[in-house]
Amino acid sequence: MKVGDKYYRSVWQDEGDPGSVHVIDQRKLPFSFEVMTLRSVAEVYDAIRDMAVRGAPLIGAVAAWGVYLSFVEHIGAPGRKGSNEHGSGRDVYTSVMNDAERLRSARPTAVNLAWAVDYMTTVLKNYPDVTVLRRAAEGLCDEEAERSRLIGEHGLPLIEAISSKKGGDAVNILTHCNAGWLACVDFGTALAPVYLAHEKGIKVHVWVDETRPRNQGSRLTAWELVNHGVPCTLITDNAGGHLMQNGMVDIVLVGCDRATASGDVANKTGTYLKALAAHDNGVPFYSALPVSTFDLSIDRPEQIEIEERDADEVRTIEGVSVAPEGIRVSNYGFDVTPARLVTGLITDRGVCRADRESIIKMVS
Amino acid sequence: MKVGDKYYRSVWQDEGDPGSVHVIDQRKLPFSFEVMTLRSVAEVYDAIRDMAVRGAPLIGAVAAWGVYLSFVEHIGAPGRKGSNEHGSGRDVYTSVMNDAERLRSARPTAVNLAWAVDYMTTVLKNYPDVTVLRRAAEGLCDEEAERSRLIGEHGLPLIEAISSKKGGDAVNILTHCNAGWLACVDFGTALAPVYLAHEKGIKVHVWVDETRPRNQGSRLTAWELVNHGVPCTLITDNAGGHLMQNGMVDIVLVGCDRATASGDVANKTGTYLKALAAHDNGVPFYSALPVSTFDLSIDRPEQIEIEERDADEVRTIEGVSVAPEGIRVSNYGFDVTPARLVTGLITDRGVCRADRESIIKMVS
Repeated sequence: MKVGDKYYRSVWQDEGDPGSVHVIDQRKLPFSFEVMTLRSVAEVYDAIRDMAVRGAPLIGAVAAWGVYLSFVEHIGAPGRKGSNEHGSGRDVYTSVMNDAERLRSARPTAVNLAWAVDYMTTVLKNYPDVTVLRRAAEGLCDEEAERSRLIGEHGLPLIEAISSKKGGDAVNILTHCNAGWLACVDFGTALAPVYLAHEKGIKVHVWVDETRPRNQGSRLTAWELVNHGVPCTLITDNAGGHLMQNGMVDIVLVGCDRATASGDVANKTGTYLKALAAHDNGVPFYSALPVSTFDLSIDRPEQIEIEERDADEVRTIEGVSVAPEGIRVSNYGFDVTPARLVTGLITDRGVCRADRESIIKMVS
Repeated sequence: MKVGDKYYRSVWQDEGDPGSVHVIDQRKLPFSFEVMTLRSVAEVYDAIRDMAVRGAPLIGAVAAWGVYLSFVEHIGAPGRKGSNEHGSGRDVYTSVMNDAERLRSARPTAVNLAWAVDYMTTVLKNYPDVTVLRRAAEGLCDEEAERSRLIGEHGLPLIEAISSKKGGDAVNILTHCNAGWLACVDFGTALAPVYLAHEKGIKVHVWVDETRPRNQGSRLTAWELVNHGVPCTLITDNAGGHLMQNGMVDIVLVGCDRATASGDVANKTGTYLKALAAHDNGVPFYSALPVSTFDLSIDRPEQIEIEERDADEVRTIEGVSVAPEGIRVSNYGFDVTPARLVTGLITDRGVCRADRESIIKMVS
């Protein structure tokens, strides 16, 4: 998507520099737009753990580049040594696998991270070659972007239907956290249908939850939407219930960090509260996700491990203290919305109900 | 309650200075403890509107002093002129009534404000005397403090019962916004039972919602509890749902800015979301309020006017920008929790169910 006059993805490699990858430092938005250059798997690990990059699909894409960079590091400068020579290959493989294992632990909840790392190590096992690995990472990013576009295509009719019903009046969409193009390689998950609707000339208006503690809504979603010209209004995380009670929300669209085979949705903390309010007020609640976000090995909410994050995220905002010094804090990063509160799941393969049968049918 | 070694109420008058009243500037907490001296009804109006003082009972108490100060201003220095002399009495009365009318508009949602102003103007009408009015304001404050103590007494058995059931393990109480002694003249509403339980040696632990946009939870409730030695943990407004899903909350106790005759509860924005989560997880949800907070003239949620507040409360935190510049904002200060989600109401006259019959019986 566009930033100023230039088109960006949220992760990319420069043609002339195969030993690095670039990302936007999302911790600096919306105040400054800074590109970070990651030159090692350690820098990739830090960028993921410290949330310079965040959002399940983007984490996966950047992690894929991490495995690639690990390989580049362990074989020496790419192109100089034939990486598909046997001999030292075993050591390189073991070293990259160790890096991959560490990378997998950078954020525990995002299933895409493990998925992308697994994909890259499988490629590595079969083709321990720098060009093949680079193309694998590139391919993974392209596919991620295409998945987002497809989520947009499949979600668009939901917005169109509401727009028709309202005689063309703006469709009011509430979203939580950031599930836009910054969270993905391009276009987004929950916001992909919104961008497509907007580009088709359908009137939309987005209520943006600020999403404490890290304010991904006010910092990233609002920034994305404003830059793209989509009408939006910032609200506190507390406000959505009142808006829904008063008919000011037509649909809730959120992303997903992990979904069970039964349709339970782990997403940014507070999502569950919005799902409850949507259910209580007859507002449709959809979670948008690529099918890679399903974890079919689990089918109950309590099987999703919920990451606890640093207390200072709550004690401070933008580095400014907002609470008594040293106050005890609890800071779970996600919650799980049970399937019974989810109207449907918007995936890159279509929209399905949040139940095991529909999901298995969609995924298989 | 205590601040350092000194006992304070949240509003008081010094013996030697009948022309002023003192409050704690709650906007400065928890970073600095500053006492504000209010010397006119205009200063009282500003203190209420700008939320130097907040919380329904305290707003009422300070407003009562506002009517008193208006009278002092219009009759000249107290004691110098006999205020119960007739003649200029009509002008004074009209002027004070005008001030009272303006005072009533400082915060639209809090029914205690109107109630306290009405009480004071009734006293004024019958006894246009500075001493009578001062005693009326003092009496109103004393009664407010006593009401809080009684709310504590009536709510205490709820906490005791949970404590017994848990074999003496800490009772986990979730609260939203600030309904402690800072919100009242003394002791609090929702926190009054907590303080009483703590003083009785019952183990309690409070989950404190930070309460965006103004962070009354992280700034005031956390400060109150820490200063009083009550164990507490600060959480974002998004976190309570996850905690309730995981059995980490035994009871939700919140205050109330206005309640309908049917038991619908207007309280700080976001309360409704917590009530939904409590209901969904079988956690009892109680609102604590003096009976003066009932507005028996209304019996439906939509009859409660919800104040819209300044956009900068959302755009900034502690003066620091947290969103793209100029972003559109919606900022409703309160929401209404429908009676069906309220387990019970803890009042100064006892605990009752949130329905018309129980409320009328309790109030009359």
